[in-house]
Order: sequence, then C-alpha cells, then structure tokens
Amino acid sequence: MALFEDKWIQPSFILIFTPVLFLGLKVQMFSVKKIDEEVAKLLELKAQLGGDDGKHQFVLKTAKGTRDYNPKQMAIREKVFNTIIGCFKRHGAETIDTPVFELKETLTGKYGEDSKLIYDLKDQGGELLSLRYDLTVPFARYLAMNKITNIKRYHIAKVYRRDNPAMTRGRYREFYQCDFDIAGQYDAMIPDAECLKIVHEILSELDLGDFRIKVNDRRILDGMFAVCGVPDEKFRTICSTVDKLDKMAWEDVKKEMVNEKGLSEEAADQIGEYVSMQGGRDLAERLLQDPKMSQSKQACAGLSDIKLLFSYLELFQVTDKVVFDLSLARGLDYYTGIIYEAVLTQAGVAPVSNETQQGAPAEESVSVGSVAGGGRYDGLVGMFDPKGRKVPCVGVSIGIERIFSIMEQKAEASAEKVRTTEVQVMVASAQKNLLEERLKLVTELWNAGIKAEVMYKKNPKLLSQLQHCEESGIPLVAILGEQELKDGVVKLRVVATREEVRSIHSAHIMFVLSHTDTQICLDSNETLKVCM
Amino acid sequence: MALFEDKWIQPSFILIFTPVLFLGLKVQMFSVKKIDEEVAKLLELKAQLGGDDGKHQFVLKTAKGTRDYNPKQMAIREKVFNTIIGCFKRHGAETIDTPVFELKETLTGKYGEDSKLIYDLKDQGGELLSLRYDLTVPFARYLAMNKITNIKRYHIAKVYRRDNPAMTRGRYREFYQCDFDIAGQYDAMIPDAECLKIVHEILSELDLGDFRIKVNDRRILDGMFAVCGVPDEKFRTICSTVDKLDKMAWEDVKKEMVNEKGLSEEAADQIGEYVSMQGGRDLAERLLQDPKMSQSKQACAGLSDIKLLFSYLELFQVTDKVVFDLSLARGLDYYTGIIYEAVLTQAGVAPVSNETQQGAPAEESVSVGSVAGGGRYDGLVGMFDPKGRKVPCVGVSIGIERIFSIMEQKAEASAEKVRTTEVQVMVASAQKNLLEERLKLVTELWNAGIKAEVMYKKNPKLLSQLQHCEESGIPLVAILGEQELKDGVVKLRVVATREEVRSIHSAHIMFVLSHTDTQICLDSNETLKVCM
Repeated sequence: MALFEDKWIQPSFILIFTPVLFLGLKVQMFSVKKIDEEVAKLLELKAQLGGDDGKHQFVLKTAKGTRDYNPKQMAIREKVFNTIIGCFKRHGAETIDTPVFELKETLTGKYGEDSKLIYDLKDQGGELLSLRYDLTVPFARYLAMNKITNIKRYHIAKVYRRDNPAMTRGRYREFYQCDFDIAGQYDAMIPDAECLKIVHEILSELDLGDFRIKVNDRRILDGMFAVCGVPDEKFRTICSTVDKLDKMAWEDVKKEMVNEKGLSEEAADQIGEYVSMQGGRDLAERLLQDPKMSQSKQACAGLSDIKLLFSYLELFQVTDKVVFDLSLARGLDYYTGIIYEAVLTQAGVAPVSNETQQGAPAEESVSVGSVAGGGRYDGLVGMFDPKGRKVPCVGVSIGIERIFSIMEQKAEASAEKVRTTEVQVMVASAQKNLLEERLKLVTELWNAGIKAEVMYKKNPKLLSQLQHCEESGIPLVAILGEQELKDGVVKLRVVATREEVRSIHSAHIMFVLSHTDTQICLDSNETLKVCM
Repeated sequence: MALFEDKWIQPSFILIFTPVLFLGLKVQMFSVKKIDEEVAKLLELKAQLGGDDGKHQFVLKTAKGTRDYNPKQMAIREKVFNTIIGCFKRHGAETIDTPVFELKETLTGKYGEDSKLIYDLKDQGGELLSLRYDLTVPFARYLAMNKITNIKRYHIAKVYRRDNPAMTRGRYREFYQCDFDIAGQYDAMIPDAECLKIVHEILSELDLGDFRIKVNDRRILDGMFAVCGVPDEKFRTICSTVDKLDKMAWEDVKKEMVNEKGLSEEAADQIGEYVSMQGGRDLAERLLQDPKMSQSKQACAGLSDIKLLFSYLELFQVTDKVVFDLSLARGLDYYTGIIYEAVLTQAGVAPVSNETQQGAPAEESVSVGSVAGGGRYDGLVGMFDPKGRKVPCVGVSIGIERIFSIMEQKAEASAEKVRTTEVQVMVASAQKNLLEERLKLVTELWNAGIKAEVMYKKNPKLLSQLQHCEESGIPLVAILGEQELKDGVVKLRVVATREEVRSIHSAHIMFVLSHTDTQICLDSNETLKVCM
C-alpha cells in the first residue's frame, strides 16, 4: 500500500488534472457526454486498482439503517397489517402500487432541504433514478399521469431515506409507510373527517394504549402568523419553530424565534398565547370571535372548517380523542388545509422518549409518541399535471414502524409465545419405517386444506416430533403406529394437555381441523369435540 | 447548443485528458481516493453544465421497465398472492423479509455474467449498495449471518434487473419473486418432493390450464456430459446450450455445440440421444442399467435420487404432472442436485409465444410458458459463512409476474367484473339534507365491522349513489328517506335485482351483513334472508 500513498502521487496528479479545473469559462466547451465518458474511464481505472482502496474484507451484514425481519417479526407485522388493511377496506379503499424507484426529476423539488436524504441510483446508462422518499409524491404522479380525478386508495410499501438511523427507536433508512388518501372534489371536511375516524379505529383496534389526535389547519397557522405581525417571508421558518413545541419548552421556542429567526418579542408573545390553546368546536367558535384572529380571512376559513369538522367527528363518535391544538404545525410544505397528528399518551408504551437528541428529521414522524399524521394537500397533484389541473387530496399516514416496535416490545414482555407458522397438525410416527404412511396422511390433510407438517426424516424420534410441536406451537399431533395402522385408525393428541384419542379416522381429523383453528378438547366419552 | 458541439471541443479535450490514459504503468500511482475526488469534480462540472445535455423537459412516466399497479391489477395480485401464501402456510412455512438493497459485495460473484444487470446505488458516501437481484442470495446471506441451520420459509418481494424489458410479455426490470425454500440437513429427496407438491398445488389451484413439471438433476447432466466425452471445462457452456432445447430444434442446438462450442459431432450426437429421453421412475431405472451412463458415479447418484423422488411423488399424488426430462438444464450456477421447471402446456393461455426473439436472460424465466422453477443448491450458504459451513437448501420460485399476466388476460376476456373494493353496503339518501343521518348510520356499520361507504357530498343524487354501487359492484344499498326516518327503519335494496325491503332496522342490516359476503335474497314475506 505504501507505494500508492497520497504524498507520493500528489504532484503528478495535480499536473494531470488541474487544467480541467482552471480552464474557467472554457470549461463550458466540454459536452456532458464527454465528461460521462471520462468518468467511466476513471471508474474503470479505479476498478483495476482494486476498488475502494483495497478494502476487501467480506462483511456479513445488512446495509446501514436497514434490517431483516425474522419470522417472529413478520408474524407481528402481518397481524398489524391485517388490522390496518381491514380498516382501510372497511372504508371502501382500493389499493395501488408504484415502483420502488422514480425518475429523479419526479422527486426533485418536492421535499425542500430533505432532498439531500434521497437515495439516487448509479448512472449506469439510461434514465436517472431515485428511490422513493415517501408514497405521497408517487401517488400524486400516478394521479396526474393517469388523469385520475377521484380515488380512495391505500398504499403500504417501503420508502427510503439516507437519514441518521436510530434503529432502537424504530427509525430506519428503509421503512414502511402506510398511507390512506382520498382524492377528489368533495364537500368540505367530509373526507377529512373520515381520515380521522380511520386513525381512531386503527389505534383503538391495535390496542396501543390511550391516544390523542391533534388537529389544526395550515390556514389558521398562516392567519395567526399574519395577525401576530410575522412578516410573510418568515411564515415557513416560524412555522417550523412552532413545530418543535412538542419537544421543546415554550421559552426555548420563543428564544429561537426571537434570537435566531429575528422575530420581535411582541410578535413571539402573541404567538405564544395562541399556541397554548387547546379545545374542541367551542375553541374554534371563540377564536372566530377573537378581535385579532377574526381579522384574517384565511384564519376564519380554517376556523369555520374546524367547526364543521368537529360536527362530523361527533357523528363519527370520535371526539373523545380529538383536540383542536393551535401548536400543531406539521413541517411538510405541501399541506394546504387541515393537518393532524396522533400521539400515544401513555408513557412507557412509546419506545421514544428522547428522540430530540438524535436530530429528528424536519417533518413527519418527529414528535414523541407520534403514530399517525396527515392533512390536506390540494396543490401537489397540480405540480405534475402539464396544465396544472388540481386534484384536492387529504390523507393520513400510519407510523407503522413505530407501531411494529411497540408491538414487538409487547410481545417480548408478554408470556404468550408468538407463533410464526399456522400449522394445525403434525403428522408423526411412534415407530420406525412409517415414512410412507406419514407422507400419505399428510397428503390427505394438505389436499383437504389442512395446515400440516411432517418431519423430513425417515425415522424421526417421537420425542423430537413432539418437541417440534411444542416449540412452534402446533396444537395437535396425529400419531401413527403399527397397531393404529392395523386398526385403520389414527391417534390424535392435544399437545398442550397430552390428552389423546385413538379412534379417529383421517376423515375425522379433517373434519375436526376444518372446523376450528386450534381449539380442540376432549369430552368425557373420549370423543374429540370442537370448542369454538 | 451549437457552441458545445463535439467537433469543436474535441481537440482541447484530448489535450487535457489523454495523459491519464497514456500513462501506462504509472497509472497505478493514483490512489482510488483521488480518482473518486476527480470523479466528483467532473460530475459537479456536469451538473453546472445542466445535467444530461440539457434534457430538461419534464416527463410524466415511471422508470423504464417498471409499471404502476392499478386497483384492478392489485385485486388480481391479491387473489394470486392469497392462493400462493395459503399453500405455503398449509405446508408450515414461516416468512422473512430482507432489505431491498444489499451491500454490493454481498451480490458480487453470485450471478456470473448476469452481474452486469445489477442496479447499483450511487455512491453518496457510506457503503456501496446494490438492489437485490433475486431473493435466494439474500436468503443465503440471512442464514449465514444468523447462523440458521434449518428453516422452511417463503419470501415474496420485488427484485431488480437492468434487463431488456419485454413488458407485454410480463418481463419487467422491477418484478416480484415468490420463493419457497427448505434449508437443513434432512433425509434425501423428502423436502425436494415437497417443493414439487407445492408447485402442483399452486398451479392446480390457480387454474391456469394444464401443466407439466420437468425434473432433472445437475449430477445426471454432468455425468452425461462426462460419459459422452465432453471435456470438463466445456460442461457449463454445453449445459447452457442444452438449456435452449425448449426454444430451439435439436438440429440448431447441435450446430451450436459443434460449430460454436467446438464439440465433436460424435459427442453431440450422444448427448442428443440422451436429452430426447423423457419418462418417470422407469426411465431412471433404465438409465441406471445403461452401459454408458452407469459408468458415471455422479450420474448414478442423481438417477438413484430421481427414483427415490418419484416414490415420494407417488405418495404425494403428483406424478400425473411430473416428467423426468434429461433436456432440462437450468442455467443458474449454484444448483447442485435436483432441478425442476413447471411449464403451462395449453397453448393460448401462456402470453409468451416468441420470447426467444427478445433475447431472453441466461437463466430462470426463460422457457416458453415457464411458470415455476427451482432446485437444490447445497453450496450457496457456505459462500457466506466465514468458516464455509454448508447449509443444504432446496427451493422453488413461482413465476408470479407471468401468472399475473395470464390472470389479467383472463380477467379481460371474462364477462365478470373484477371488484377493486370489498364494500358490502352503500349508505345512501333519497332526499336532501340527510347527510347527518347517513354519517350516523355508516358509523354504526363501521363500528360493527361492516364494509360500508357513503358519498362525500351533502346532497348527492340518488341516481349517482346507485350508479356508484353498480360501477364498483357494491351489492347492497341502505336508503334513508324522511318517511323511513320517521318510522325508524331503513330501506335495503339489492342492487343487482332492485328488490327492496323497508322494515329493516340498522341492527338487522348489521346482522344480515355480518353473516354473508354478498349473497342476499328476499323471501316471499319480504324478509331478507341470507343465501350462503
């Protein structure tokens, strides 16, 4: 390696390459194509030199910020997905899928300064591609491309961000998003209210502990900033400071506004008064009468919509968990109306207690215990339409990775074992040389739709077959022995209780197993009965 | 643009860059790090010049070789997945998931010359990453990394290949793979036979028309080559020529062997005799007696295993579709024993009739009508283990994209409409100003687990509400009117027949809907009854 040390080669290196860099204006004489060719030559040269400075040790790991899901995690994931998809389907949603990568330019200009977190694919000839950063921009691209003006869809898929991972807290570079959106020109607040109903249903059903759904409106925020004397050009930056209120004390937020963002102390104090307000429909009514707030048309439009929203939320029976909270200010630029965020309020359930110190990303999934968020974005689809035709949208994203983390922790803490298969019966033998009979019986069971297993050994020990049942939670074992074969019966044993019945024909096993999941018990006559 | 034309800049370009290329041995004096820096500078320069030769028009499309799935395609996809996953679960498989990208070096050296089709991620600092090319190598990496010596798992996920897409034939750059594998040291041919049983079950259940599963063994192929006088170093290349027999006539295959690969005419003719053989257990027995074939220990080991395999396949009741076919020679290097491939035999069902002309890839998914394939690969996991510990594996990959294509075509051809939602009932109103009542009723239904929809309009027309039901196949509509509200009842209408009952309370709707999917009929007393 000493031969290639930087010190030694530096001079000739500069000799060769510097002309390019000092050509100044003449530089423009190169065509991009030529540069590409030269880059290719240099990279080839690099490959000949043995790749990245001879780092050739083989590392057995997944890429930074990513993880495999093992069978147990997959079982939990499947359960969570089933609950969520069940809810989306109950509300009549269709689903779509989009490719994992998009043309780079499709993503350009949609994420502000977070664009630096986008994974680009290597230019291997052809189109420039990037991995999707969220599901919302691909959704908007899909709507514009197919000229779809109304749809209610969900999309569950992985997205990619070159972020600083905090994996113990459920923050990864590859992670699931789980989005439900309603696109279309409809009467105000009806779809918006349904999104909140959906969050309420999902969080209740997942049983994650108590939660609250904060709502606000981008127009109320903007109106509030205007009447408090925030200059127009500072709306966004002040808004992102307000967004930190769930992790910082008001005093610190104020300091940032005044000292870093140059807001007047008076304006900051006025904002401080408003953002401390929380309530329901009544608060919206009161603010509509507020001498200052009522001066902003925007704020009034937002407040009227909040009132309307709450009237629908009452009909949907979800007002117990929803709070109108003027401090809620979700970061994403594309929101135009109502915004909301659900947080878990029971300490100890949420695995995230000091997220702040890790440099959380500037937008969703920021706040402590946040497990869902969304809002209305009426302008995004128009950015993709050649004629700028708008398709109003409102949607919600379920913070599924955080929910996985919580569920995994709960599973760890619980005494109940997570099953990773759904096998109902193990076909076992008590003596040697019964492989054929085992394979025959398991075939009968499979053909009848029963979930069944057999060990891949000619002569497995009965003990190891029973052990496998206990380890993987198989509730029943069908045991073949020479006597049973002579009598044309099968012995069926309930693994948990070790109870057995002998007088069972394979057809009977099938009957028993097709009519139950795992609940089998024996009655006093030694006949199996099904307990539903 | 004229200013930057190649002609004009060529001379100065050469002046600057050629020294690098003519340095010869001295080239090794550059460190890779320096090259990286220069590449970065050049790319920055390229960006300043305006990216790829000023192509700035915004294109609304998905990346080449990829597609969105619309709700109808997703509904078909879900149905296919449910069938396949149902089968995997019936056989007791767990599932895992791995990240979409791996360290580049994890994929290096696993795919032979197909490696050029791997998508690399851009080097944005940090690890060098590539998109997964299949699910088998990540599976092997997962086993080695977690020191797992036995598992039965399925994995359904997208993989990526920078291939020449032939999308009308179901060939994409992003496509699903659907793998089932059994890893572990077991008695010969039992897991192998189960893989074939699974293919048989899935293809039967999907109802794609008649099919055949060809089996062969890598050891029989190698033994056959040896006894036919193929030099050792030509095994692989002759094998890949044999692999073309499902798309080329024997005469052309022979020509390639003799003229291009330099095999003697005599050797080619001997191979020709063997590869025309098809049969079952009997053929394996006959070949074990074959004076030439029996000289190869390898071939004998393979033939004995084929015999054993067929004995298990008989117990599994799948021999009707399985053929021992000596011309089957799957391309992937990592196979070490049994190999198999399922093909659809009914012309017209398979959407692929002249795949050959498109330059099919050198490995799986090649043959006409091929819908599944796999085999035994006992060496792959050992490539990842630091101590080279082997984990024997056998698996099968279902050609799910081709199956999607066929199912989509069938759906197109069929009169039956594909439903994209599962909504059971639409809550509608016959008069104006009944939004509140509609929202109340739909809430009751949602809370009872009924899949229900309501239009997002204050005063939708009854006709448009009914139209929506017809379009999206919603079987029932619950109609609210002033009279019904007074009487405390709901009118329930079967959309297809327009039959109605009036005397229904919402609890009754729930009862009806919780006990059926879509089958509702009216008996003579105007009472709804459920037809199961």
